[in-house]
Amino acid sequence: MSHDANDVPASESAATDLRRNERAVKLPPASDAALRFIGVIRTPWVHRDACPRQGRPDGPECRLVLDPVWHDALQGLEEYPMIEVLYWLDRSRRDLVLQSPKSDGRTVGTFALRSPVRPNPIGTSLVRLVRIENGTVVVRGLDCLDGTPLVDIKPDRCAFSPKAPPKSGEGEAP
Amino acid sequence: MSHDANDVPASESAATDLRRNERAVKLPPASDAALRFIGVIRTPWVHRDACPRQGRPDGPECRLVLDPVWHDALQGLEEYPMIEVLYWLDRSRRDLVLQSPKSDGRTVGTFALRSPVRPNPIGTSLVRLVRIENGTVVVRGLDCLDGTPLVDIKPDRCAFSPKAPPKSGEGEAP
Repeated sequence: MSHDANDVPASESAATDLRRNERAVKLPPASDAALRFIGVIRTPWVHRDACPRQGRPDGPECRLVLDPVWHDALQGLEEYPMIEVLYWLDRSRRDLVLQSPKSDGRTVGTFALRSPVRPNPIGTSLVRLVRIENGTVVVRGLDCLDGTPLVDIKPDRCAFSPKAPPKSGEGEAP
Repeated sequence: MSHDANDVPASESAATDLRRNERAVKLPPASDAALRFIGVIRTPWVHRDACPRQGRPDGPECRLVLDPVWHDALQGLEEYPMIEVLYWLDRSRRDLVLQSPKSDGRTVGTFALRSPVRPNPIGTSLVRLVRIENGTVVVRGLDCLDGTPLVDIKPDRCAFSPKAPPKSGEGEAP
């Protein structure tokens, strides 16, 4: 992934980059599990300052461009008007416990924010499926940078009913 | 992580484990990004057959046990009645493009399922926050195995309003 000249890789983030009262922790390199990117996300936003803070269902079309090995894994996805997209926020530092999103010194815990800055910078969005063409999924409702690595696509949990039969001991859904 | 004797690590999954018409692909080891588990999930389900297929808001209490380094990152989370939980489905094979969830030979693409079997086996659940005590988040609505590694916690996107001020070029929220 390319980086803006202004971007500081997480490994080089220093205490001096912190806003007032923010707190970072020292961590060993992440090594518990490895991701395999499945494609790349194309959006109109090529600089972080241009990204909306939250995607909107009437936002511009964005494209989930799947690697060819996964094209057939899209079969059946067209049935779902809303889909969940997971992606890797590859420019985010990962070591902040407390953040000061308004830069005013008032902090909140990382897990009480949907900020890209988190120990595992995975973004999740619920987006409108517009169409699927040649291994590319066109959606509305994203807010991430152009070039963001794609991690997963799932049907919206609200619309999805498990395809497998119920298991023993499992009650009827309410 | 411990594995049942019946579990086959993804790296050793063979074509003979496939249901009728399922399709696996050969993949190099995943190496695009690394996760750092932030804790562990405690649930009543210690065998896969006992897990419900989908969590229910009136399901049993489950516990997100955070590693101590992240305890303070929970500050402010108590404001949100619903939270999103990400976890690593560490017993899932990762190489299936087409799956036959009913074992009847009819296949569907991996990305049209919420099955744990996917190239990046990250589960996402929207759960009810019950309480937070000493770095442990008690929730209802999960469906994963006891001992599942915890990857992230976020406020529900529906309830969350960005804390930072709007950015230039960003319209008013609808």
